[in-house]
Amino acid sequence: MRVAVVKNILDANSRIAQENRKLFDKLGLTVINLMSSPGAGKTTLLEQMGKHFGGQLKIGVIEGDIQTTLDAERVAAAGLEAVQIETDGACHLDANMIAAAIDGADYADVDMLFIENVGNLVCTAGYDLGEHVRIVVLSTSEGDDKATKYPAIFQGSDAMVITKTDLKPHLNFNTDRITADLKRLQPDAAVFEVAALQGQGISDAADWLLAKRPHRK
Amino acid sequence: MRVAVVKNILDANSRIAQENRKLFDKLGLTVINLMSSPGAGKTTLLEQMGKHFGGQLKIGVIEGDIQTTLDAERVAAAGLEAVQIETDGACHLDANMIAAAIDGADYADVDMLFIENVGNLVCTAGYDLGEHVRIVVLSTSEGDDKATKYPAIFQGSDAMVITKTDLKPHLNFNTDRITADLKRLQPDAAVFEVAALQGQGISDAADWLLAKRPHRK
Repeated sequence: MRVAVVKNILDANSRIAQENRKLFDKLGLTVINLMSSPGAGKTTLLEQMGKHFGGQLKIGVIEGDIQTTLDAERVAAAGLEAVQIETDGACHLDANMIAAAIDGADYADVDMLFIENVGNLVCTAGYDLGEHVRIVVLSTSEGDDKATKYPAIFQGSDAMVITKTDLKPHLNFNTDRITADLKRLQPDAAVFEVAALQGQGISDAADWLLAKRPHRK
Repeated sequence: MRVAVVKNILDANSRIAQENRKLFDKLGLTVINLMSSPGAGKTTLLEQMGKHFGGQLKIGVIEGDIQTTLDAERVAAAGLEAVQIETDGACHLDANMIAAAIDGADYADVDMLFIENVGNLVCTAGYDLGEHVRIVVLSTSEGDDKATKYPAIFQGSDAMVITKTDLKPHLNFNTDRITADLKRLQPDAAVFEVAALQGQGISDAADWLLAKRPHRK
């Protein structure tokens, strides 16, 4: 007697993420999943990206928060199209939440969609949302030991954006150390340093994102 | 026919937490659960608390990390008794992990035990470890909107320690705003401001902790 073995069954999240990605590709929409600790500066980075790409690209944002619409209001005030997901306690976004969010939105003329995940350096790492690019955002004030202590999120990211570099004179933060730790986990990861409030370093990260676009069309 | 209804059944975590607390009380050990985002400064705060209480009290530490023993090594270097829990991916400590950690340790002559939770402002909030005091640690660089965005952890805390106050001149951080948001969630919460690397504000927080001790004996 032979037993039929069905292999590679996708879990529900991966299945929905795959559907999301198909839809994004069909729309020619490049989707970026921004992940970090609370307060690392994802929203400020988005505000600056919006400013940088203004006129050149149409940018959409999905904001994930446990509660409140504070971040969505901030990016909307910066002129970006924002959809808010309130996770009602859940510590990360998942593909199903994204599917629900894009279901009600019109992305026909949007070029790039940023998903700002819940502030959580652990739980967000395990959930594919259907994005094309994963970016881990780390502020200098969090310390240069974080890639070693929270390896999953760094290992799964295409780039690390180090924020709040204007604070470096007041901190013990070694960019070489965190970069070396990141490269051990993910040799191909790009590294950017920004002081977003001052608009510094934004264009390097933005150019890198632009270069990701042709592959999606 | 009558149906027997058993009420208030504790979930497994709460049951074990209760056992932990009984044991801590028996040992005359005051136990503090330190919770925060990654990189808020819990370990530096512990190093300074150890220094402050040195000679006066015997301090024990349980370090919770997803991976690595970096933090345990730091507090051990500061002269504190440290036990490391590696959660192997789990995003928070739970009562069962603490039960396992204290099972192998001798706390007979220890007065105060700090549990440094995994860096996570969301998931840690839901798990009673058997502690007597809960402290949420928030660094100024994370921003003053965090009590509103991550209410559960602030609502469940006896005190908020604001760290890295030396960075305030370089940030837009309004202590009054975060304090008002905290008090809405938890009117009785104490608030402390520290610049731990400079040793500033440590004694106020330490005195408050000392005042918690007699109730436990």
